[in-house]
Amino acid sequence: MCQLLGMNANVPTDVMFSFAGLSARAGEHPDGFGIAFFEGKGLRLFVDPNSAKDSVLAEAIKRYPIRSEVVIAHIRKATQGRVALENSHPFSRELWGRYWVGAHNGDLKTFRPPLHGAFRPVGDTDSEHAFCWLMQELAKAHCRVPSIDELTLTLRELLPRLHAQGTFNLLLSNGEALWAHASTNLHYLLRADPFGAARLADDDLSVDFAQHTRPSDRVAIVATEPLTPDEPWVRLAPGTLAVFRQGQLVA
Amino acid sequence: MCQLLGMNANVPTDVMFSFAGLSARAGEHPDGFGIAFFEGKGLRLFVDPNSAKDSVLAEAIKRYPIRSEVVIAHIRKATQGRVALENSHPFSRELWGRYWVGAHNGDLKTFRPPLHGAFRPVGDTDSEHAFCWLMQELAKAHCRVPSIDELTLTLRELLPRLHAQGTFNLLLSNGEALWAHASTNLHYLLRADPFGAARLADDDLSVDFAQHTRPSDRVAIVATEPLTPDEPWVRLAPGTLAVFRQGQLVA
Repeated sequence: MCQLLGMNANVPTDVMFSFAGLSARAGEHPDGFGIAFFEGKGLRLFVDPNSAKDSVLAEAIKRYPIRSEVVIAHIRKATQGRVALENSHPFSRELWGRYWVGAHNGDLKTFRPPLHGAFRPVGDTDSEHAFCWLMQELAKAHCRVPSIDELTLTLRELLPRLHAQGTFNLLLSNGEALWAHASTNLHYLLRADPFGAARLADDDLSVDFAQHTRPSDRVAIVATEPLTPDEPWVRLAPGTLAVFRQGQLVA
Repeated sequence: MCQLLGMNANVPTDVMFSFAGLSARAGEHPDGFGIAFFEGKGLRLFVDPNSAKDSVLAEAIKRYPIRSEVVIAHIRKATQGRVALENSHPFSRELWGRYWVGAHNGDLKTFRPPLHGAFRPVGDTDSEHAFCWLMQELAKAHCRVPSIDELTLTLRELLPRLHAQGTFNLLLSNGEALWAHASTNLHYLLRADPFGAARLADDDLSVDFAQHTRPSDRVAIVATEPLTPDEPWVRLAPGTLAVFRQGQLVA
């Protein structure tokens, strides 16, 4: 299994406090990591087959002041597919002139839905295969660029087919919205005014968000397990799809 | 205009000496940079809308010991498309279960070939539009995964159509081969045993390759302008396509 981290905000936001919390869990999830930052339509995608705890790249990312509206990060404990760069999540493809990014926690066992469209896995994980199938089915379902609401309706039809075949916790984004599908463990947290202080559950790190935010800022965080012990995380019920835009839960 | 750097080797090779030489030219090409590293089928793609001379990311990459069989790098001087993350080369798409990477130096003026396939630009440069068209036409030309020789034949048909519409110096790779198409300025260099010392034309940096290589190593470097003044760079004639595999010129 793996661990997921997602962030969606209404202003470009630094996610390094949360990423530090995720990285602290890399001891048990040492088989690679990745983090994708959307900046408008642009995408920075960092992947590494090394543990986020030891990786030179992870250290560089933590020092690098990237502010983003949507982030998806993943630390890997390999279940299917060897430890390799091409098997490190998140995966990315272009559809309708937008980059799409997905990361998966779980195991689809032997389920390999047919791929007859324009998306093929590069590596050999069940996760990338499922991501390519989702891209293929989204492309088939819409003859022109759909709205976020239309995409959400299509995903509500597609995701139960994966959920029925194994464990499929998913974070997915096109840079406009963050979709979070819970199969077993996925929690979210909404930060908004009044902002307070928080400390990480797994690391000796605290931050007072009041000093780094404006009253209009809104930030949604999604994680496999709550990253902070003193904030009101909400568990997503198995089989549900949550949609975040502008730092708010919209569906 | 921009500047290009490509590398292809028969063993995973550190390209930082050459990237330092390219970065030294970023003063005149300050509108972003990017560098793509293939490691087997896996890909690391770093892009930044900041100058390679000042970018925190460029500094981190220079310190990070990445060894790769194929590298494509680009420093940008914007001609079409604003300075933005999504307009920073190289661009990447997946085709036939392989990542493809392309970077362009030149200007296609008003030429926008029709895009009716599975590849759409995310940004607004002529370069990404042409790259998506190339991916589309490669996909149409082959009903199953072609060999490198077959791909080269198809590219020899496609590239003159872009070359005829403006300036189109291109570096393209799927991680197996490096294709270099010259429209105006593109030079290559083959390094092999006996390896010697080299110094950069634009930076106070020297390296003795004899100390970092084995006799069986072979490395091909492609660059807009020769990076070193004391090595036998070969200019590619306008309209020619060179193909590099395992550090050797194969076509």
